[in-house]
Amino acid sequence: MKSSRIVLVSRPVGMPEPENFRIETVELPEPDTGQALLETLYLSLDPYMRGRMSDAPSYAPPVQLGQPMVGATVSRVLESHDTAVQSGDIVLSYGGWQTHSVEPVRYLRRLDPAAAPVSTALGVLGMPGFTAYSGLLTIGRPQPGETVVVAAATGPVGSAVGQIAKIKGAKAIGIAGGPRKVALLRDHFGFDAALDHRAPDFADQLAAATPDGIDVYFENVGGAVFDAVFPRLNSFARIPVCGLIADYNATGLPAGPDRLGLLMSAVLRKSLTVRGFIQSEFAGEQMPAFLEQMSQWIARDQVHYLEDVVEGFDGAIEAFRGLLVGANLGKLVVHVAD
Amino acid sequence: MKSSRIVLVSRPVGMPEPENFRIETVELPEPDTGQALLETLYLSLDPYMRGRMSDAPSYAPPVQLGQPMVGATVSRVLESHDTAVQSGDIVLSYGGWQTHSVEPVRYLRRLDPAAAPVSTALGVLGMPGFTAYSGLLTIGRPQPGETVVVAAATGPVGSAVGQIAKIKGAKAIGIAGGPRKVALLRDHFGFDAALDHRAPDFADQLAAATPDGIDVYFENVGGAVFDAVFPRLNSFARIPVCGLIADYNATGLPAGPDRLGLLMSAVLRKSLTVRGFIQSEFAGEQMPAFLEQMSQWIARDQVHYLEDVVEGFDGAIEAFRGLLVGANLGKLVVHVAD
Repeated sequence: MKSSRIVLVSRPVGMPEPENFRIETVELPEPDTGQALLETLYLSLDPYMRGRMSDAPSYAPPVQLGQPMVGATVSRVLESHDTAVQSGDIVLSYGGWQTHSVEPVRYLRRLDPAAAPVSTALGVLGMPGFTAYSGLLTIGRPQPGETVVVAAATGPVGSAVGQIAKIKGAKAIGIAGGPRKVALLRDHFGFDAALDHRAPDFADQLAAATPDGIDVYFENVGGAVFDAVFPRLNSFARIPVCGLIADYNATGLPAGPDRLGLLMSAVLRKSLTVRGFIQSEFAGEQMPAFLEQMSQWIARDQVHYLEDVVEGFDGAIEAFRGLLVGANLGKLVVHVAD
Repeated sequence: MKSSRIVLVSRPVGMPEPENFRIETVELPEPDTGQALLETLYLSLDPYMRGRMSDAPSYAPPVQLGQPMVGATVSRVLESHDTAVQSGDIVLSYGGWQTHSVEPVRYLRRLDPAAAPVSTALGVLGMPGFTAYSGLLTIGRPQPGETVVVAAATGPVGSAVGQIAKIKGAKAIGIAGGPRKVALLRDHFGFDAALDHRAPDFADQLAAATPDGIDVYFENVGGAVFDAVFPRLNSFARIPVCGLIADYNATGLPAGPDRLGLLMSAVLRKSLTVRGFIQSEFAGEQMPAFLEQMSQWIARDQVHYLEDVVEGFDGAIEAFRGLLVGANLGKLVVHVAD
């Protein structure tokens, strides 16, 4: 069986460029006992992948040069050498940026195509949805009447954060880039207020939308949004940090003054909690409850989701570049095969 | 009854100067029902008082100009108009920088002079000791074999942090300024390693003393110590933040580059917890257990303490100025009367 795959050939400096990657075709090995041959149906594209392209110290090792980019996939089992899955099953896999792969069956999770569109296992019912759920509820702990702010709010993490915050009785303020996304925040996702971070008076708009200050800032972007949020934080505010997409392409530190001490001083004066996390830390304990709860919320129309489906495996690189500048509208997936 | 008191007459810019204060004598009012007339025996001097001299936003309101500086005291009851305390009792009070005061009895706590020297109610058995206990155990949560780092480590907070960390089975690294303090860390307080932050190769020494990285950094100083600690933090490290004395006299932000994003990036990559706190947040729940536990540890010789006693009320201003540059050796108290 042949597989097309996208391999990393050099480490991007700043924005990833097409020449950092190569599309190649390889012959896959025969699946061994305990393995399955998979055909990728959907490939997930997520901001964390920018980190895997870099060899800076991180919570996960970088992709080696010459190896395919990593990533979650929804795949069809073509051939199984294990009783746990059968040919024809649809599974959540970690197949990477390739059209076919051979994977250990113990890492696969069978999906029920009747329960939900299978691509949602990469979004609202997958890692991004769980990131929102675990980070917001475990670290953010929104209380009724509190104010929760999240940016990249039409994305799969931000949109889930806002909607779960509402379910918990908090006020949800969503931030996104451009009028189309801002309209979606209000109309599709039901945020209490929706702000455009590109507006020249964005900081003033945020202040007006948060008259009681900010109790939870779910941090997934960093940069200018954080700067506007920072002075609005209330005493005992919680800041779960799951991403800093605005900084991922940075090639050096910005000019001064140095605000590190200013941040620490606010942490002290306001008894702030700043807590970085990766969803995998909570998956063992909370994933079953999440899957059940989130499925219910979707069924009851309490949580909406939005997918941005790119057609064709070859579009993955351009789509990923777009993701880093917010060109996508909702959870970005590549539709690789039917 | 006349009282000498030290009032704040102007807000310091940078280091507090003698002209920011005035020593004056006032006639105290007669104590009313529910009040007591107190004579100050010991006045506590603590870094947080620098914050009260400033009107920058904080967790507590500033001292008003013309009013006496706030502060905890150990006092003798001269006259009581409440059955809860009697003339002659020794009490923990919040009498401020004055030789005598009239206080509501409900805010006083009776001390047992037979149980421990009464001045310890301002140090190891008081607010500083409880700051160490609650912050380390609730936020830092040191595990056996982990590495705990604390600066200002001969002070009442830092020395308690190190010794409690040892009791919990962690390795304790203490940082202080100058060879005399460093020797005390090892010989008097039993730290596993003691470092002088004034050494030119301090960062290298810290790296050598923390071969397994740092799991808990109890932050009470900020500045250059934090800079050296920062790259040594392990994944899932916890940073309770109770003070930033190195920055208290700062009059502006330091020059760039801006490292705010660098800190947030480390929070994300290493799943760090940075949590500011004031001990009062935990006092209701944990104070009784702390008093019992800490008294036991002292009785069993598992916790040592060190007091720097300044003789005479008039020395308070100079002693406080010295505190901000580390001139004291142990918990700083002013001995006001026998």
